[in-house]
Amino acid sequence: MRIAIDAMGTDHCPAPDVEGAVLAAREFGDPIVLVGDEARIRAELARHSASALPITVAHAAEQVTMEDKPSQVGKGKPDSSMHVGMNLVRDGQADAFVTAGNTGAALSIATLFSLKRIEGVKRPAITAVIRIAGQSVVFVDVGANADARPEWMAQFAIMGRIYAKYALGLSNPRVALLSNGEEEGKGNQLIHDSTDLLKAMDLNYVGNVEPKDLLGGGVDVVVADGFVGNVFIKTLESSTRMLTSLIRQELMGSTLTKIGAVLARSAFERVRRQIDPFEIGGAPLLGVNGVVIIAHGRSNAFAIKNAVRQARLAVDGGLIDAIREGVASHDTAVRVAVEQQSAGDGA
Amino acid sequence: MRIAIDAMGTDHCPAPDVEGAVLAAREFGDPIVLVGDEARIRAELARHSASALPITVAHAAEQVTMEDKPSQVGKGKPDSSMHVGMNLVRDGQADAFVTAGNTGAALSIATLFSLKRIEGVKRPAITAVIRIAGQSVVFVDVGANADARPEWMAQFAIMGRIYAKYALGLSNPRVALLSNGEEEGKGNQLIHDSTDLLKAMDLNYVGNVEPKDLLGGGVDVVVADGFVGNVFIKTLESSTRMLTSLIRQELMGSTLTKIGAVLARSAFERVRRQIDPFEIGGAPLLGVNGVVIIAHGRSNAFAIKNAVRQARLAVDGGLIDAIREGVASHDTAVRVAVEQQSAGDGA
Repeated sequence: MRIAIDAMGTDHCPAPDVEGAVLAAREFGDPIVLVGDEARIRAELARHSASALPITVAHAAEQVTMEDKPSQVGKGKPDSSMHVGMNLVRDGQADAFVTAGNTGAALSIATLFSLKRIEGVKRPAITAVIRIAGQSVVFVDVGANADARPEWMAQFAIMGRIYAKYALGLSNPRVALLSNGEEEGKGNQLIHDSTDLLKAMDLNYVGNVEPKDLLGGGVDVVVADGFVGNVFIKTLESSTRMLTSLIRQELMGSTLTKIGAVLARSAFERVRRQIDPFEIGGAPLLGVNGVVIIAHGRSNAFAIKNAVRQARLAVDGGLIDAIREGVASHDTAVRVAVEQQSAGDGA
Repeated sequence: MRIAIDAMGTDHCPAPDVEGAVLAAREFGDPIVLVGDEARIRAELARHSASALPITVAHAAEQVTMEDKPSQVGKGKPDSSMHVGMNLVRDGQADAFVTAGNTGAALSIATLFSLKRIEGVKRPAITAVIRIAGQSVVFVDVGANADARPEWMAQFAIMGRIYAKYALGLSNPRVALLSNGEEEGKGNQLIHDSTDLLKAMDLNYVGNVEPKDLLGGGVDVVVADGFVGNVFIKTLESSTRMLTSLIRQELMGSTLTKIGAVLARSAFERVRRQIDPFEIGGAPLLGVNGVVIIAHGRSNAFAIKNAVRQARLAVDGGLIDAIREGVASHDTAVRVAVEQQSAGDGA
C-alpha cells in the first residue's frame, strides 16, 4: 500500500514529519508520498540516508497553519499539503493520509471538499486513542461536533467500535458514554437520550462511565459529544503535563532530590512510556470516505511513524468498507430507536 | 460564630469529621456543633483531649449515604445529620454547616427542604476551588445542573465572583467560561449564548479558556454547566491520582529507584502540597440561603478543619447577603441581555 504523509503538519514541520516518513519507510517498507513544499522536503530528506527508501514527493504550494480558520482553508488554500494529500487518497493514488496539522481544517477539507462523508454517516467525528497505564481506549468525538444529537452519538459508537477492532485488535469492543456518574439518573439530556438509543442497539453497550472509570479500564470505546470530549481530552493532557512539569521542577530543587531523580530515572521512563500518546501516534477521522489519520501537532518523528502504523492497520482491515457496512446495517435500528424516543417524548 | 459540622459525612465517618471538629475548635476557638449519632460522636470525642473545647453535639438519628438518591433523602430521611445540620443554620442556631457527605443530597435538602434558594437565584450551583501549582481557581458549576441555560450560567458567574472575593481575597476576580478553545468560534451553543450574556454584563469577563489555560493561570472564576464542570473536575482529579499512583508503583520497582524515591521525598512532598485539594477543604453550595460548605467524601481531619476555615471566611464576609445583593443588582442586566439574545435569534 502507499501512504501519503503531510510534510507540513507538525508544529516544527517539516523536520519531524519527514523523519517520521523515513522511519516508516524503513520499518514497514511501503511506499510513502511526502506532500508539501518540495524544496524543503528534499532538503530534509538529504539529512537522512533515505535515497534507497521508497519515498516520493508530491509538491503542494500552500500550508495550513494552526491559525487558519478551519471553515476557510478548503476554499482559501486549495493547494495546501493537507488538501493535496487527501485528494491523493480520493483519487486512488494513495491508500491513506497522515497529518499532524490543524485538526479542524483536516475535518473541514475532508468532509466538505475532498473525501466527503461515507454514505449514511450523519456527522464525521474526530477520534483519539487514549493510553492509560498500558491500556488503550478509543474516544470519539473529541472535537468535530460541539453540539450533537443522540443519533449522531449512536453513529460515533458504531464507528468507534469498528475502529477499536482494528486499532486495538478487539473482537467485541465494549461501548460506554462518558457521563458524570454511572447511575441511570446521571447525565444531561443528550446522555439520557443517547443511552436509550445505545441500549436499543446491538453495540455491546455496557453502561456509562465517569472519568475515573474510563481511566480504570473495563471499557474500550467511549462516546461523547465533541465539546465534552474535547474538554475531557484536553484536561487529561494538560493535567498530566502540568503534574509532570511540576515534579520535574521540584526534583531540580536541591542536590539531594536531583540525585534521587537520577537514581529513579528508569522508573520515570517506564511511567512516560505508559502514558505517552506518541506510542499510538494518531487516530482517524471517522466517517469520511478514506483513511485519514490525525497526529498531534507536537508529534515527533517517532509519533509520525506510529501514526503510519495506524494508517496501515486501518487500510489492511478495510476500515472504510467496514464503517460503510456498519452504518448501513444499523441504519434501521437507529431510525426505529429515534422514532420510539420521539413517540415517548410526545406521550 | 458557631459552625455546625456533619459528623456522618466522610467515607470513614465519624472519625475524620470529629477529629476535624477538634482541630477546628482548637485552631479557631469558635463553638462547634457536631451533628449526627450522639453515642458514636461522644465515643470519638473521648479519643481526643477535647473536653475543654467549645464542642457540643446535636443528635441526628439518620445518616445520608453515598448510595442514597439525592431526590429522595429530603423526604425519606428527615432526621439525617445533613438535614438537621442545615436546619440549625436555617433556624439561626448555627452560622454555617460543613459536610463531607453526598453532594447531590446536600444540594437537594438545602434547595428544596431546608435553607431554600436565595431570592432571585434561578439555580443553586456546586462550587469547587481548584488548586494548581499553588494557584486557586473557583469553578462553578461542578454538578448541580447537568443542563443549564445561559441566564443560569450568568448567575453562576455572579455568585462565583462574589465567592472568589472571600475565598481567594481578590478585589476584582476575572471570569471566563470553560470552552474547547479560546477563539470566538469555539464552544457549543450554550457557550456562545452565555458568552454574549457575560459580555453584556459588568463581571470582568476576560474571555473563554480551554483546560490548559485554566490550569496555567490568568483566570479566577471559571463557569461551566454542571455536566461539563463535573466531567472536568473528575478528569482532573482522577488523572492526577492515576499518574501519582503509577509513579509510586514504578518507583517501588527496583532497589535503585526506591533509594531515588527516598532521596527525592522532599520534592514529592512539595508537589503534593501544591496540588492537594485538602488544603482548601471545601467549597460552598452557591445560591442557597445559608453558608453550606461541601468537603470531599475522602476528606481527612485536616481537610475538615480547612473546610471550617472556608465557612468562617464566608460568614465573616457576609457571603449570603453579598450574593443576594449581587444577584438583585444584576437582575436587570441578565434580563435585558436574554431579551436581546432572543430578539437576535428571531431576527
